[in-house]
Amino acid sequence: MTQHVFDQALALAPDDLAAGRFTGKTSAAYWNMVGPFGGTTAALVLQSVLLHPALLGAPIALTVNYAAAIQTGPFEIHAVPVRTNRSTQHWTVQISQRDAEGQPQVNTTATVVTALRRETWGTSDLPMPDVPPPSQVAPYSLPSSAVAWLSQYDMRPVSGAVPGTWDGSGEHSESVLWLRDAQPRPLDFASLASMSDMFYPRVWLRRTTRVPAGTVSITTYFHADAAQLAQVGNGHLLGRAVGQQFRNGFFDQSAQLWNESGDLLATSNQIVYFKE
Amino acid sequence: MTQHVFDQALALAPDDLAAGRFTGKTSAAYWNMVGPFGGTTAALVLQSVLLHPALLGAPIALTVNYAAAIQTGPFEIHAVPVRTNRSTQHWTVQISQRDAEGQPQVNTTATVVTALRRETWGTSDLPMPDVPPPSQVAPYSLPSSAVAWLSQYDMRPVSGAVPGTWDGSGEHSESVLWLRDAQPRPLDFASLASMSDMFYPRVWLRRTTRVPAGTVSITTYFHADAAQLAQVGNGHLLGRAVGQQFRNGFFDQSAQLWNESGDLLATSNQIVYFKE
Repeated sequence: MTQHVFDQALALAPDDLAAGRFTGKTSAAYWNMVGPFGGTTAALVLQSVLLHPALLGAPIALTVNYAAAIQTGPFEIHAVPVRTNRSTQHWTVQISQRDAEGQPQVNTTATVVTALRRETWGTSDLPMPDVPPPSQVAPYSLPSSAVAWLSQYDMRPVSGAVPGTWDGSGEHSESVLWLRDAQPRPLDFASLASMSDMFYPRVWLRRTTRVPAGTVSITTYFHADAAQLAQVGNGHLLGRAVGQQFRNGFFDQSAQLWNESGDLLATSNQIVYFKE
Repeated sequence: MTQHVFDQALALAPDDLAAGRFTGKTSAAYWNMVGPFGGTTAALVLQSVLLHPALLGAPIALTVNYAAAIQTGPFEIHAVPVRTNRSTQHWTVQISQRDAEGQPQVNTTATVVTALRRETWGTSDLPMPDVPPPSQVAPYSLPSSAVAWLSQYDMRPVSGAVPGTWDGSGEHSESVLWLRDAQPRPLDFASLASMSDMFYPRVWLRRTTRVPAGTVSITTYFHADAAQLAQVGNGHLLGRAVGQQFRNGFFDQSAQLWNESGDLLATSNQIVYFKE
């Protein structure tokens, strides 16, 4: 059985497992414009923590800062459990690549919090929008010019699809869509981390103008456990993203991901650079 | 002229300025229940970056992870500019205290992004709620049992004040209030970082039940420049906070801070531990 393309992208070889040092390789299948899709980078950060022998519990929070473009080829990840408490654990993670002189240059900084969770009272103050089921929403047809990673996902825009013409007519920044891996793969923390970054830059929608834009930092909170994610299987998630404040070269966008039953699995925020 | 109590709390002595190593001391004036108010900890992280001689630009994003309680007394901060680009800079910051054997133990991990901003198109998709001006809203009267840091702020709840009785009747998790330093002090990045954490745990409001709760990780995005903050002076900010997903010991809450003119200065998210 061939390994899923996402698992290929996530593959990490332990250089020194006890020290949390791993080596990976960029994936052509998840290539974006000038580097890997940021979602896979976030997933790799998380994966290094999940593979670490000292891991306590499951992911609660993940912040990934995209410090520099990742070049095609090998990279190194270093995951450090800085502080381990009774029920929470705090990690720092860095990804680096070697420069021409063989020196490691950091391109990604990150922090991760993991925790043992126990059953408590719970509720949601962010109900899932009322939308037609995925079977009644047409998949997004990728233009031939689309970057590689987009074809790894089945996306079904309910509203706020990428504008067909860039005529400057935009009036809002909200998108709602069904999404899942194009090639079936059971949902897990790594793929949920990746999907949290799959909303195109809100500035394109808000202005109906395509300007250079790229995520600078993303933070994702995980509200589900591994069993709840596994139950999703290859079912669709409903994703919603909306812009907040756009000013002087940066804007932030907020996102949510629900399973088909309406359980909020992850909430995510990112700040994005844009030009002009 | 006596130094403002917040500046006293922020005071950092350079142990090795070029290496980004500073020493500080916890502030009794901003004490919370079992440690310093998390807002001052976030402000201290930011301050170490702002004092660093290699600083490029102004804060864009700040993530602070509260890894362990900070004890009364001295602490060390280490700020490292991991990657400096043409217009952005990526920082890692850690706060530590010495254990009984004199070994540094990390209690706070953090990342900061700073950037040179240039003028661009901009807009807001998060308008300020329509509320009465601060002069028409009564200041919150602190109960005599209130923790110390609360008295450092002038808070005027418009809605969603701390429940007066804990009767389990809660139906929502949104608070809106005017806020500023009790003792006048011009707004700056450090105080804005601190104010981003001043909303009490949403779980108390949602359940009208007081359970042990504490922030695990906070991420704040800065949408203003230093001049825009200075213009606020000691004017009030309008703060809004709302809970999102509550499940198995953790919930997240989202917050915004506007100036009186309705400019959105900062957006913030945090994930919070709660018991039961």
